Amino acid sequence: MSTVEKQPRPFVWTRKHLLSLESLSAEELEFLLDSAQSFREVSTRSIKKVPALRGRVVVNAFFEDSTRTRTSFTLAASRLSADIIDFSEKGSSVSKGETLIDTARNIEAMGVDVIVLRHRAAGAAEVLSRTVRSSVINAGDGAHEHPTQGLLDLFTIRERFGRIAGLKVAIVGDIINSRVARSNLWGLKKLGAEVILVGPPTLLPRSFEALGARCVHDFDSVVAEVDVINMLRVQFERIQSSQFPSVREFTRLFGLHSDRFSRCKPDVFVMHPGPMNRGIEIASNIADGPNSGILTQVTNGLAVRMAVLYLVTQAAT
Amino acid sequence: MSTVEKQPRPFVWTRKHLLSLESLSAEELEFLLDSAQSFREVSTRSIKKVPALRGRVVVNAFFEDSTRTRTSFTLAASRLSADIIDFSEKGSSVSKGETLIDTARNIEAMGVDVIVLRHRAAGAAEVLSRTVRSSVINAGDGAHEHPTQGLLDLFTIRERFGRIAGLKVAIVGDIINSRVARSNLWGLKKLGAEVILVGPPTLLPRSFEALGARCVHDFDSVVAEVDVINMLRVQFERIQSSQFPSVREFTRLFGLHSDRFSRCKPDVFVMHPGPMNRGIEIASNIADGPNSGILTQVTNGLAVRMAVLYLVTQAAT
Amino acid sequence: MSTVEKQPRPFVWTRKHLLSLESLSAEELEFLLDSAQSFREVSTRSIKKVPALRGRVVVNAFFEDSTRTRTSFTLAASRLSADIIDFSEKGSSVSKGETLIDTARNIEAMGVDVIVLRHRAAGAAEVLSRTVRSSVINAGDGAHEHPTQGLLDLFTIRERFGRIAGLKVAIVGDIINSRVARSNLWGLKKLGAEVILVGPPTLLPRSFEALGARCVHDFDSVVAEVDVINMLRVQFERIQSSQFPSVREFTRLFGLHSDRFSRCKPDVFVMHPGPMNRGIEIASNIADGPNSGILTQVTNGLAVRMAVLYLVTQAAT
Repeated sequence: MSTVEKQPRPFVWTRKHLLSLESLSAEELEFLLDSAQSFREVSTRSIKKVPALRGRVVVNAFFEDSTRTRTSFTLAASRLSADIIDFSEKGSSVSKGETLIDTARNIEAMGVDVIVLRHRAAGAAEVLSRTVRSSVINAGDGAHEHPTQGLLDLFTIRERFGRIAGLKVAIVGDIINSRVARSNLWGLKKLGAEVILVGPPTLLPRSFEALGARCVHDFDSVVAEVDVINMLRVQFERIQSSQFPSVREFTRLFGLHSDRFSRCKPDVFVMHPGPMNRGIEIASNIADGPNSGILTQVTNGLAVRMAVLYLVTQAAT
Repeated sequence: MSTVEKQPRPFVWTRKHLLSLESLSAEELEFLLDSAQSFREVSTRSIKKVPALRGRVVVNAFFEDSTRTRTSFTLAASRLSADIIDFSEKGSSVSKGETLIDTARNIEAMGVDVIVLRHRAAGAAEVLSRTVRSSVINAGDGAHEHPTQGLLDLFTIRERFGRIAGLKVAIVGDIINSRVARSNLWGLKKLGAEVILVGPPTLLPRSFEALGARCVHDFDSVVAEVDVINMLRVQFERIQSSQFPSVREFTRLFGLHSDRFSRCKPDVFVMHPGPMNRGIEIASNIADGPNSGILTQVTNGLAVRMAVLYLVTQAAT
Repeated sequence: MSTVEKQPRPFVWTRKHLLSLESLSAEELEFLLDSAQSFREVSTRSIKKVPALRGRVVVNAFFEDSTRTRTSFTLAASRLSADIIDFSEKGSSVSKGETLIDTARNIEAMGVDVIVLRHRAAGAAEVLSRTVRSSVINAGDGAHEHPTQGLLDLFTIRERFGRIAGLKVAIVGDIINSRVARSNLWGLKKLGAEVILVGPPTLLPRSFEALGARCVHDFDSVVAEVDVINMLRVQFERIQSSQFPSVREFTRLFGLHSDRFSRCKPDVFVMHPGPMNRGIEIASNIADGPNSGILTQVTNGLAVRMAVLYLVTQAAT
């Protein structure tokens, strides 16, 4: 009997930025989820604070509206005792014609440790990370990635099933415009799940098969076999009218309502990144029912963001 | 001689929400005011902080603009060492079509202890309190109630006169649209004051008599007998043009200017919830004069909100 | 040998407001810069916090947009452990018709220690300082002054050259609309620099000569002799089209581009208050080159604002 065998392989997190899940190894993903697990516990205390990032400064640089992701990062930073500042207003210098890079260099020159960036341009976070010395966390870059959303989805699935490998996960809706779909796809594939993308041909082009996903245009053809259904938000503000005939048609073909739900596995796990369009992509009784993990996703988002903020800061020092 | 008689009746605050003054007993109101009294002292120190709510999270969920109430809650929370987050922006998910309840459940899922809600719909705070586990504080719901404003008015009157019972209090102006009037009315009646509502028939319907108030359409008929005059703000943005002929007419009939003021009791106490329309509902020299309690109301608002935040949090644990 | 001679003259900062550089003595300016020097060191620590203003409350009252100055004050306050609150929204009571003074009195009644005011009206901060008991810091009042910007420019010049006296400093561009130009002019003159104002006659009236500056309409005539060039931002949103013919024309005559730069002293120090219009008033390679102090200005801004917040608060107690 040797105690040596029981020693975990030592792992040291070395990334000072979190830009995508595509760029992470399975080992890094699992380390992130394990770290989030230990921060998850902090949120159950009545005093939900640890001094881990005291004296550090986190900037929310949100150039697209997002109250919930921004709030989640703010709470995560504040539980770590970091100072957090919003640099998100419409009235910022960005509207005076300053480039993103100049704005970021200015933020950095103020001695900021972490920049949490949301930007409409795919690749914005990566460009930034090559320019500034601060850590950069991608909080959504165009239709590219939204890695902390992907991580919280992975975390919530793992928490529910005890594993990710071998699960069949359907991601349903407006795939082409969804950074959530992309981050989920990368994360799930790396951890061994099978990913089925579901949507109309206009919102789910064949090119996604090259990323290792099964692409399906008929939701009903797969609804009975999946363990997890991740319903994307119909983003009326982004979808062009030519991309599908009508909301009613979309709901009928790709919504998760009682009829379709009755054909699912009894323990199917239903997820949604929010905010929901109740009655459109998801029926209220399912969103609020026992198979739903939707509010758990929100709770876990905080733990995941605490882990990310902590790890990138440690790697930077 | 018995010491037993001197023992105060032990009182334990049990409400985890503050939704209205209508729902509180006289005993609860007095306990709130006494608690505010002890927090009032904190604001006079040079280090204006106590660790009472360290690690707790308060969310300002303001779906109507209100810089001053929001700022007052923010300062109150920060003096209690709580973390406070604004969830108030136009760009919030509410504008993406999410319901108030979904938004609130999401806020709650992030582990928030107290939601301070301002909403244009009467009853919004109560609906919320039945849905979430967090404490809910009503910071104004439509024309229904604004309980912390009512409490700070009670506190300020009690501070000035040493009592509330037996005082005659006139509340003047746009009664029908005023949540401040309603919260004052309930609080003052419960603590034994006589309330006289003053306004034109269009803004002061007879139905208010059923709430136990004297309703008067002629300000001059009562101006000499009252101890307190609480001048409401003329809310131009809410009043329909049919409700009174002109601003000049309103000022002449219901404004507090020097002529009318000269017929008041010498120690009449003048209040206003702010922001004032100087020269319309109140003359500048009265607003800034020795009978005015207007800035004291603002100062006391902080103490009252510290007490409310503290008590609802304690009741929730 | 007497030790008495070596004793520095004891200096006690007595101003509870910072309204302008015009009103400060050379001795006060130097004391401010020296204080900033000691706060500069805090920003280099990994835990960038000192408890100097714990329990104090600073309010950012910004009635004009300014993300970068506001962020700088917020970070400065938070490094001093003060609580800082924004009272800056469009939705504030100011938009309900409340006067600046009423708003400020309300802020003060909440027990605020310092009001940082940005306002479009020249003199707003001074008016405020005569009305409230809180300390007032002018963060820009119309085209009048922006004293903390002036101080950070002085600090950055002194850091670069070891002195200010005897230097030749050109300030270039839209002088007439620039509070930055005015604060720099006063500060530089008091500390013994020679100031050359450069701009077209429409943006640089003769009246500036009365303030002790040399006024020049031909940039090329002085470019070779100056030690420092402070390029102002072309404020397209403020300049009237009649004030200069075209952006291209302005760039040719008053921009700092490679041709003109090649005629500068080799160690000329290039400054800009930001945000920059790259390619208009300044070429990118110069802004990012070794002669540029632009990001250092931003870093120093934090130290200067820490010093100002600290000193006005101490003087007030």
